[in-house]
Amino acid sequence: MGIPRKEYEQRQEAARRRMGERGLAALLCVSGPFYARPGDVAYLTGHFPPFPTAEGGEKLRGIGHAAVVLDDRRCALVVDTPAYREDLVVASEVVVASDVWAEAARLLRGTSGPVGCVGSDVLPWEGGRALEEAHVQLVAADSVVRELRRVKSPAEVELLRGACGCAREALLACAGACLVGTRELEVAAQGAAAGLRAGADFVRYVRVHSGPWSAWPTRWPPATDRALQKSDLVLLDAVGARGGYAFDVGRTTLVGFDALPWQRELFDAVLRALAACLRAIRPGVPVAQVVQAALLAFEERGLGPHASRFLGHGIGLETVEGPLLVPDSLEVLREGMVLCVEPAVYLPEQGGVCVEEVVVVVAEGCNILTSDVPRRLWE
Amino acid sequence: MGIPRKEYEQRQEAARRRMGERGLAALLCVSGPFYARPGDVAYLTGHFPPFPTAEGGEKLRGIGHAAVVLDDRRCALVVDTPAYREDLVVASEVVVASDVWAEAARLLRGTSGPVGCVGSDVLPWEGGRALEEAHVQLVAADSVVRELRRVKSPAEVELLRGACGCAREALLACAGACLVGTRELEVAAQGAAAGLRAGADFVRYVRVHSGPWSAWPTRWPPATDRALQKSDLVLLDAVGARGGYAFDVGRTTLVGFDALPWQRELFDAVLRALAACLRAIRPGVPVAQVVQAALLAFEERGLGPHASRFLGHGIGLETVEGPLLVPDSLEVLREGMVLCVEPAVYLPEQGGVCVEEVVVVVAEGCNILTSDVPRRLWE
Repeated sequence: MGIPRKEYEQRQEAARRRMGERGLAALLCVSGPFYARPGDVAYLTGHFPPFPTAEGGEKLRGIGHAAVVLDDRRCALVVDTPAYREDLVVASEVVVASDVWAEAARLLRGTSGPVGCVGSDVLPWEGGRALEEAHVQLVAADSVVRELRRVKSPAEVELLRGACGCAREALLACAGACLVGTRELEVAAQGAAAGLRAGADFVRYVRVHSGPWSAWPTRWPPATDRALQKSDLVLLDAVGARGGYAFDVGRTTLVGFDALPWQRELFDAVLRALAACLRAIRPGVPVAQVVQAALLAFEERGLGPHASRFLGHGIGLETVEGPLLVPDSLEVLREGMVLCVEPAVYLPEQGGVCVEEVVVVVAEGCNILTSDVPRRLWE
Repeated sequence: MGIPRKEYEQRQEAARRRMGERGLAALLCVSGPFYARPGDVAYLTGHFPPFPTAEGGEKLRGIGHAAVVLDDRRCALVVDTPAYREDLVVASEVVVASDVWAEAARLLRGTSGPVGCVGSDVLPWEGGRALEEAHVQLVAADSVVRELRRVKSPAEVELLRGACGCAREALLACAGACLVGTRELEVAAQGAAAGLRAGADFVRYVRVHSGPWSAWPTRWPPATDRALQKSDLVLLDAVGARGGYAFDVGRTTLVGFDALPWQRELFDAVLRALAACLRAIRPGVPVAQVVQAALLAFEERGLGPHASRFLGHGIGLETVEGPLLVPDSLEVLREGMVLCVEPAVYLPEQGGVCVEEVVVVVAEGCNILTSDVPRRLWE
């Protein structure tokens, strides 16, 4: 399991080609630590920055970040620590630097022409300024790599399927723990443990929000010390990664065996919206149309005003990647995209239901990577 | 438990004062999500951004981030989602925006004079550019708030003590799981579960590296599927947060009961280095002197070349805060600083030992917040 070395080389070559098409002399790709925005650097080189980002100092800058300088002749990786996985990295050279931005500037010195920045939403402002002061002519060019990342290779789809397996274990463990009197954080603990046991690199959190809190779409804190009560709805969301690829799978369960009529209504509405979404997914379809299908399904049930207008997102090396499934999206689905589809409805003070599947877009529609996680976990 | 509202107001007032002293017309503070760089915004307002950062789009920018605009008359919080904890936030106004940077620029419009950026290492480059294009005269001013954050209030020290309690549970659970044949990831699973059960907001990871891997100071992946063997050293590091305040506590344990002579040597050396560090800590002492004390202790044992030159860091709302305990630090210890002190020695291919304590600097030296975590977990 894993991404073959050859595939990394193909990715670098594809990025190089796109760079040339845009008239860019080089690319500077910037990523954060393995648990937060590792995407572009990991995509090109297989490097996952192993430490947190942090305030640096005079001589230490870019802590927790990594950068790739890609041009016609090289794919150089700049890391902030010698403790990187030499055995996994695919790059023409690796430089360990205490100031990642100064080192990137050094590598880019003398580049004649604009340098495309991939990760303009990750590169810290101070890093961008340091590069500009070193006369690097930086221009935002995220899409040069992000467009490539949107479409997953067969190896990537398998890794994402493996990652979903961790989420499955986490969610099943959570469901089993949802008994009257159990605290949300105990449920989250059992879920996280099951995910890690199944081989997750990390479990960022397992969201467990019960009863009226299930209607509260925040993620902080992901679980509270509230004790579950009979007939509570419990929103579960397992988020993390395995083998560098992210999982984000959600279910809503129930404490007890019999859903109340209003709960059943919410649940049915969410499953209908989900089905409408999945039916709409196929290559060439605008994302907005998929979102519209779900929102229409909610409206038909009179739940329009309470439905989340955020229907999901791409997933890959990061939990949340493009395309975002939002009503005003201008993107179009492509074969090989992997999406988290998460219709949700929240009745304030009362309760919410969300079901989140991970699907891969295929020629004839989509395949669900999470079909082995039961939708009615309490049954 | 928690930070009183009044303390947030005092923090805002102190930041405002320092802003004035620096001749700044306003401050723009920028933070990331609760599990990665929430510090400056959380410090001023109690807001922890609840979602991951992600690639946005035309209308969505700054996803996962939050910003504070502080000037003489207000402390405005800009959030990217209505799903924030209104009950916890202390701000003169809260604005929900789909483009956090555009909204910050709007709030800063007409400010005459330089705007101090706190979080120049967190604000994405694209955000900085958007602000500059909106004629905000941004200058790096991280220390305006970071200096305040370095010294913890009694309420903060209590929260950090509580956070350490989660790490304690995690480490004790790990130690109990370190048996011959158990896989590293099973140990990590039990540790993470214990930390969450003890009330952690999240456990970023529990590092479990055993045998020769204990000499490998990377953090990715934090645990592998290697099965523990008799006489393995096992490096454990529990990292996460509780009540918004971070924990980062480390121990090294042993599979079995009897350390081999070379293991005992490493262990003794680390404990001596730790003791030397702790003896050196008191207000007014240069950080470099504390680091030197540890490195000298390793050199006396002939382990200088294998000792980590990174002796630790401050901790608070983020896992890694200033001051960094590095040989060329120019900082001086102050009463109320809370530090992770983590002397470590790594013999390549053989094994490593690290012991990491959390201490608060007090008038007469330091108090250890993690003294209830046994240093010899295998005994």
